[in-house]
Amino acid sequence: MALIVQKYGGTSVANTERIKNVAARVARHRENGDRIVVVVSAMSGVTDGLIKMARDLMPIPTEREMDMLLATGEQTTIALAAMALHSLGVPAISLTGAQAGIVTDGVHTKAKILNITPKQVHAMLDGGHVVIVAGFQGQTSEGHITTLGRGGSDLTAIALTAALKADLCQIYTDVDGVYTADPRVIPNAVKLDEIAYDEMLELAGAGAKVMQLRSVEFAKKFGVIFEVRSSLNDNPGTIVKEETRSMEDVVIRGVSLDKNQAKLTVVGVPDRPGVAAGIFKALAGAAINVDMIVQNVSHGAAKPVTDVSFTVDKADLLKAQKVIQGLKPEIGYRELLTNESIGKLSIVGVGMRSHSGIAARLFETLAGQEINIDMISTSEIKVSVVIDLAKAEAAARAVHAAFLE
Amino acid sequence: MALIVQKYGGTSVANTERIKNVAARVARHRENGDRIVVVVSAMSGVTDGLIKMARDLMPIPTEREMDMLLATGEQTTIALAAMALHSLGVPAISLTGAQAGIVTDGVHTKAKILNITPKQVHAMLDGGHVVIVAGFQGQTSEGHITTLGRGGSDLTAIALTAALKADLCQIYTDVDGVYTADPRVIPNAVKLDEIAYDEMLELAGAGAKVMQLRSVEFAKKFGVIFEVRSSLNDNPGTIVKEETRSMEDVVIRGVSLDKNQAKLTVVGVPDRPGVAAGIFKALAGAAINVDMIVQNVSHGAAKPVTDVSFTVDKADLLKAQKVIQGLKPEIGYRELLTNESIGKLSIVGVGMRSHSGIAARLFETLAGQEINIDMISTSEIKVSVVIDLAKAEAAARAVHAAFLE
Repeated sequence: MALIVQKYGGTSVANTERIKNVAARVARHRENGDRIVVVVSAMSGVTDGLIKMARDLMPIPTEREMDMLLATGEQTTIALAAMALHSLGVPAISLTGAQAGIVTDGVHTKAKILNITPKQVHAMLDGGHVVIVAGFQGQTSEGHITTLGRGGSDLTAIALTAALKADLCQIYTDVDGVYTADPRVIPNAVKLDEIAYDEMLELAGAGAKVMQLRSVEFAKKFGVIFEVRSSLNDNPGTIVKEETRSMEDVVIRGVSLDKNQAKLTVVGVPDRPGVAAGIFKALAGAAINVDMIVQNVSHGAAKPVTDVSFTVDKADLLKAQKVIQGLKPEIGYRELLTNESIGKLSIVGVGMRSHSGIAARLFETLAGQEINIDMISTSEIKVSVVIDLAKAEAAARAVHAAFLE
Repeated sequence: MALIVQKYGGTSVANTERIKNVAARVARHRENGDRIVVVVSAMSGVTDGLIKMARDLMPIPTEREMDMLLATGEQTTIALAAMALHSLGVPAISLTGAQAGIVTDGVHTKAKILNITPKQVHAMLDGGHVVIVAGFQGQTSEGHITTLGRGGSDLTAIALTAALKADLCQIYTDVDGVYTADPRVIPNAVKLDEIAYDEMLELAGAGAKVMQLRSVEFAKKFGVIFEVRSSLNDNPGTIVKEETRSMEDVVIRGVSLDKNQAKLTVVGVPDRPGVAAGIFKALAGAAINVDMIVQNVSHGAAKPVTDVSFTVDKADLLKAQKVIQGLKPEIGYRELLTNESIGKLSIVGVGMRSHSGIAARLFETLAGQEINIDMISTSEIKVSVVIDLAKAEAAARAVHAAFLE
């Protein structure tokens, strides 16, 4: 008799029909004799509706009250999910994040889980209930309602799995699992049976949208094995876990393509200590997230100068431009170039650690397609290149074929 | 510096525009230097939407989960109301019923308040905040969310007033206060400056829809003086309080007309002990609320029989008919008559206690209008008659003119 934590996202509970489907799935699992904790998100669209009302009242709603407001979304779903199970004759009970014992810090709208005391969850499970917990939310030790920010419901499921010492955590979503690449771009992409935390982290960081980084980081930290699988069918999904020796036999786990980045190049920056720090401190101060950074060796003899390139989310490009232009008097660079027509192509795999020549093979593959490389950045288990957006999908297909087919 | 509890109902907070109006009103009060606790209902329509979703899942939703679901309605309003105050620069903080320390019994969907420990409310008030409390809800001592049933938000406001020892409780609604009669029926009706709890109770019981009985009963029990007033203007409302000697000078406080009742007469009931009890026990068992009951002396010599008449809500008429028909073999009455075309006209006033001849004057007024009286029922401060529905409004106008103009 296993204890399973199942998490269903907003599209899986978007309306009462889909909630009935979720209930039917939970009921089937329960017939196997398993004890089940269900974590649900707000019905898709509900959170946006609440945010819209809040913005009607003030452009930047106060964060404590935003949490009070948004927490109603998941509370609605847990009650409806419990009713759907009751209508199937399954004993079930709903708990808010606070009732489930999820204690967070006081950073409203992006709180961190401090600890979980799942006394109520245990008691309800012992009473034979399916326990339905509101994802995305908790309360401070003073009793204020908090929310966990983006990907918060995944985090709730994984943290509960750790706190309950559950046997399995299943993250139900609208895809079959984690793929070697985005199947919409690369028809030959295949679903992975398993993937290491670090690979999942690098893929998420490289723009693959399956899960937020923080949930995977939390799972890694606490050794929570979880499965990403579809709520639309019964196919087995992808198991995410600590890397095993056998995983290293696979050189590359996946290819990801991020078309949502823009590149800025600050040309002719004086090559003296503190200049790069000045640039990126200013960007951080404007809350702009910088992804890749490349700086090459300096040129010029008397007054050595260098070029600094970096990428940001396209949405942040204008803001980043303004920040850098504002630094011109202080730094004295020559010019600022920007390019929105780029794609970031990454290959990820823990096998890279034990296999050499991976980067070379990547560059060779791209050269074979007459694709010029703009920027290169590497980590222990990832190589990323920035290339022309127009050629990015063809490049991804060629790289997928070279490494994964 | 007074401490005021203000309650705003669903129509007063129906959308973000109206919530802004409520915030502006609260802000003005605060400028007077008063400390303010605001109790709000769910935005009108929200509760119905939630109930509809629940019924999609099961015809009779489980009550604990219904409370979990419905409590989100008020939680949404408190967060939005706090934001609306913030946008005016007023410090405000929202509290759910549970956070405000409202502890109830475990009778879900119609819980009773057991006690209130408003520690948080006091702390927030001391911190200079307007405190916004979700009406209609509380939690059990085990931490389950409960709701208080119909009129629950009024009850929250009145109970909080008692627990906080507040100076004043204002119930904001869409009418200017309590009238001598329904102004839509009787154009000469005037707003009362004050009314005694008992009068308010009898008027509510007689079909005047200003407030639920239980809130008035609670106010009476704990001596909470409250004012019913409009959220649409600044007119003073009606003060509801313990009766004073001066109130007795007014013979009749108001006239009410209830057109929502139906009459049943069981003809030829054997006049022996336990028969009436059998009838009303059966009706109670079917959860049918009986209002007026009239039984006259028996007739017939050998086997004395009598006629029993009573009124029920029109919506319950068919159900009541079935119950009585089912009793025929057991009781052996002659026939069952029903009449939906009735109106119940009542006059209410604590002054009746010290003035004689009130009932006679009522009957005389009706006789002057050629109106036949079907049933009569009296209490210490109320006289009710059942009359033909077609003549009911004219009768109400004549009675209002005779007693109140």
